Amino acid sequence: MIILNKQQILDKFDADAITLLLKEGFIAFSQQQVQLPPVQHLWFEPANGDCCIKSGYLQGDSLFVVKVSAGFYHNPAQGLASNQGLMMAFSAQTGEPQALLLDEGWLTALRTALAGRIAAELCAPQHISAIGIVGTGMQARLHLMHLKNVISCRQVWVWGRSEAALEEYRQYAQAAGFEVNTTQDAAELARHCQFIVTTTPSREAILPAADIQPGTHITAVGADGTGKHELAPELVAKADKILVDSLAQCTEFGEISLAFQQGLLAQHALVEIGTALLQNRPFRDNQQQITLTDLTGLGIQDVQIVKGILMR
Amino acid sequence: MIILNKQQILDKFDADAITLLLKEGFIAFSQQQVQLPPVQHLWFEPANGDCCIKSGYLQGDSLFVVKVSAGFYHNPAQGLASNQGLMMAFSAQTGEPQALLLDEGWLTALRTALAGRIAAELCAPQHISAIGIVGTGMQARLHLMHLKNVISCRQVWVWGRSEAALEEYRQYAQAAGFEVNTTQDAAELARHCQFIVTTTPSREAILPAADIQPGTHITAVGADGTGKHELAPELVAKADKILVDSLAQCTEFGEISLAFQQGLLAQHALVEIGTALLQNRPFRDNQQQITLTDLTGLGIQDVQIVKGILMR
Repeated sequence: MIILNKQQILDKFDADAITLLLKEGFIAFSQQQVQLPPVQHLWFEPANGDCCIKSGYLQGDSLFVVKVSAGFYHNPAQGLASNQGLMMAFSAQTGEPQALLLDEGWLTALRTALAGRIAAELCAPQHISAIGIVGTGMQARLHLMHLKNVISCRQVWVWGRSEAALEEYRQYAQAAGFEVNTTQDAAELARHCQFIVTTTPSREAILPAADIQPGTHITAVGADGTGKHELAPELVAKADKILVDSLAQCTEFGEISLAFQQGLLAQHALVEIGTALLQNRPFRDNQQQITLTDLTGLGIQDVQIVKGILMR
Repeated sequence: MIILNKQQILDKFDADAITLLLKEGFIAFSQQQVQLPPVQHLWFEPANGDCCIKSGYLQGDSLFVVKVSAGFYHNPAQGLASNQGLMMAFSAQTGEPQALLLDEGWLTALRTALAGRIAAELCAPQHISAIGIVGTGMQARLHLMHLKNVISCRQVWVWGRSEAALEEYRQYAQAAGFEVNTTQDAAELARHCQFIVTTTPSREAILPAADIQPGTHITAVGADGTGKHELAPELVAKADKILVDSLAQCTEFGEISLAFQQGLLAQHALVEIGTALLQNRPFRDNQQQITLTDLTGLGIQDVQIVKGILMR
């Protein structure tokens, strides 16, 4: 069995190759060619931790993948990362363990950011005078980094609750070649940006409906469980077109779930990324539409990123 | 992270210590002190394989366990074991991976056989003139071996479909100190034995109701999924008392599920092993009762055997 640590995994990470694999994965998912059993959850209250276990198999592949991914929110106080976890690959011919990827949660972070890149390829408007990033954490950084490949704009507005975190983000983004504006007013960000990514685990809406400009695209990454949302339901309802990674997951617990369950999306056609990729044309019909992508995360992304690491 | 291979795991295996841990686990399970998310299943038709992923956590423990266990039934033709798999332990304080146990399915086999030993402690009649083993495979062997600690009888009848397999089993059991009779007639086995273990993956009843003697105990291990059963539903209905590892699992897909769903068990009190262990007295009320134990396998057994291996 191959065992790879985080650095060995990052050395094998090829964003372009894995983006292609992720696209194949989204398409296979939307064509029901993927086995994805319901996610297992465990909770550890005293440690403020939780764990989810995902497994997946793309029909015809030579391997299947099991992922254990944990978040323990007292860890940083001990100098440990909150996100923990590993991924494993097993032979689909014999069941034997083939590889253990001790990625410490990085592969999940990376495949999420690359899904954001795919959403940008599908949805971004032609004219972007600034990118807006809501949040200052890991996903806020990885998304910006991977958007560089598909969006030429190098102006960024970032929203955060803490001055210190905003300042750290500014240094990060400047080093990556961006001109950076920071704000604690999400409406200000909305007024300046035509491509916005929301990356927080917030349980109350941050981005208001009123200030979003025509032609804006928003990718919502933070809501991955019941109760989490970053956008006002009126903003979700205001979107002209909505792209989702999974119809089932997004309507159950994604960013759009609240608006969906309130009946605000009755007139909307929700389209899965895999379906949109097959159509092979821009998702937006014109440059005035507001588009929204809701990413909840799919086990097939884990399968594909593991394949991408192991094939190198 | 500690990584143990099969031999290192077997070197640390202490049947008595782990039996005690399993008893604690069954009790905690019946007292709802265990998190056991629904099992994940994957299927691999071309390879005639399947995989199940179980995870579990006993409240208050310092670790939780994830098990990947696969059965690939074309493997033996390639010189590989059908059963594959591994178990992992993670910190319940930080989520960090702590141990990888490359047990190749052995820990599942052993915790199952030890559950049979616990059933024997609870249910065996005082007088046993012969032990009956239905099947000649791994569980048929491990059960007999671990019954030696709780049943003094050294006469065994074994039922199998193949003369060659019966002969191999005879040699195994003789080497373990048993006098062995083989048969291809399950009724003959039933007439001689007061303690019977059924260990086959059969989809049709092997053991008939008519020939079971008063005072007999039967432990049914084989049925762990819909469609599998080894006992005629009339035999299940004939049991005076029925012990189950899990009420939910056994009535859904265990040996007793068919009789249960046919309404034949309306008069029976089904008792979980954990509940019976708390009562701290023999499960049978007298030496004439026919008792039955249905074992479907619980994730808490995986948790406990991993703890038992890692504490040594």
